[in-house]
Amino acid sequence: MKSAIRNGIIVDESMAVLPVTKREVQYSFSVYETIRTESGKPVHLQDHLERLKASCRMIELSHPFSDEMISSSLYSLIEHDAISDASCRILIVGGPDPLFFITYSDPEPFPESYYSEGVPAILYYGERFMPEAKTSNLLMQYLAAEEAKRKGAFEALLVNRKGEILEGTRCNVYGLYGKRIYTAADGAVLSGITRISVLKAAEALGFEIVYTPPTDTNYHMFDALFLSSTPYGIIPLSSVNGHVLNRRSWEEIRKIHTLERQWEKE
Amino acid sequence: MKSAIRNGIIVDESMAVLPVTKREVQYSFSVYETIRTESGKPVHLQDHLERLKASCRMIELSHPFSDEMISSSLYSLIEHDAISDASCRILIVGGPDPLFFITYSDPEPFPESYYSEGVPAILYYGERFMPEAKTSNLLMQYLAAEEAKRKGAFEALLVNRKGEILEGTRCNVYGLYGKRIYTAADGAVLSGITRISVLKAAEALGFEIVYTPPTDTNYHMFDALFLSSTPYGIIPLSSVNGHVLNRRSWEEIRKIHTLERQWEKE
Repeated sequence: MKSAIRNGIIVDESMAVLPVTKREVQYSFSVYETIRTESGKPVHLQDHLERLKASCRMIELSHPFSDEMISSSLYSLIEHDAISDASCRILIVGGPDPLFFITYSDPEPFPESYYSEGVPAILYYGERFMPEAKTSNLLMQYLAAEEAKRKGAFEALLVNRKGEILEGTRCNVYGLYGKRIYTAADGAVLSGITRISVLKAAEALGFEIVYTPPTDTNYHMFDALFLSSTPYGIIPLSSVNGHVLNRRSWEEIRKIHTLERQWEKE
Repeated sequence: MKSAIRNGIIVDESMAVLPVTKREVQYSFSVYETIRTESGKPVHLQDHLERLKASCRMIELSHPFSDEMISSSLYSLIEHDAISDASCRILIVGGPDPLFFITYSDPEPFPESYYSEGVPAILYYGERFMPEAKTSNLLMQYLAAEEAKRKGAFEALLVNRKGEILEGTRCNVYGLYGKRIYTAADGAVLSGITRISVLKAAEALGFEIVYTPPTDTNYHMFDALFLSSTPYGIIPLSSVNGHVLNRRSWEEIRKIHTLERQWEKE
């Protein structure tokens, strides 16, 4: 039987539940973080805690759960269930009686072929409300991911009304052209924790970062497009809406990926 | 102790809970309806069931709960708890294992002064994703309602990027000018069940409906602004962002309200 954390206490996972009568559950007034553990160690824990606080600040969700409480809860859950490699999810629901949960699941497998062959994506037109806050208002992402699944794609790239490809449903998006990497500006997308180290690694390898995103009319002109996300690092895109993409810089993308994952382990 | 319905079965209200590990709970992939009961009778039940189905269709949420099952569940809950006047909430969560709940709460009181003196509102800039689907992605509405509360207002009027006042967080919005009533077009807002009868009542009283909403620059020029919602019928606005509004047609608004509530009882 799996365990979970509820308001700092270890409980059976079946107790990690939300009352449907709570107004903040009805209005999805909640924030979350997904943290990877490797060999029982949470990766980038402090960054996730900082982003969780930032999400709370943005939607003015106040709660009594300190960083210390959250991280010690996470460590006790890891110890209690002898968790090794997992994806842990912190959820905080606001309101007069805030709730705090940690649950976990097996990490998704990312086959080596994703890295060597790339993955297909589709375009999905839609804009997030408050893109920098990681909240449970994810209907658009759900619908976009379902459409991607139906079309055999790995991800849906979210396109805003200007035609800009800002991010994926669960990742950041980049276009590589010569020695430049094009991506959305910080305020327009969720500040990905892996994104930060991807951009640092790219700079260390001599790339210049241009904060202009690829668009729905120029994406095929880049030397390569790629995604980044905490669970898998960097994966190149093989196609968008069925249009096969250039693969001119996949070697270089691989180098950024390797450096980023190496830093993460340090 | 209050009861609730969970997947068609009467349970204690404490059992009306959502597992935080369910992906559709995490992504707020769910739809709802709020139905008023008067003396133990659900008001406009068939209309609510139709809108629930429409919401499901829009987000492609499939589930096995038939109209018959939902309404017989509602009636058995009303009987079991001897419910007289209440606000009942139907919630359906999608995914591989759909969930269906009915819970209820006391109806909110709407003092007579709301009708005679009107209520204050604020403007809130934000746009709904899929305005016609009644889903749990309500963060913007939550934040808007909180801001209204902080400022002592009854409602927040949602303004789109064109400056159009489309609806409130929990109501439809109208401007009255001469013998015309101005309001958003059907596709742009949630198709309010009370809105339909309000517009019919207005037409029966000789008003022409113009499907153009009031805006953030012309709202003070109307003879009167008013809100409609299932729980309270029609309430006039006394002010917006502190600017006192015209009250030239409050008599007429009252007539529409009375006719709408009368029809509802028939």
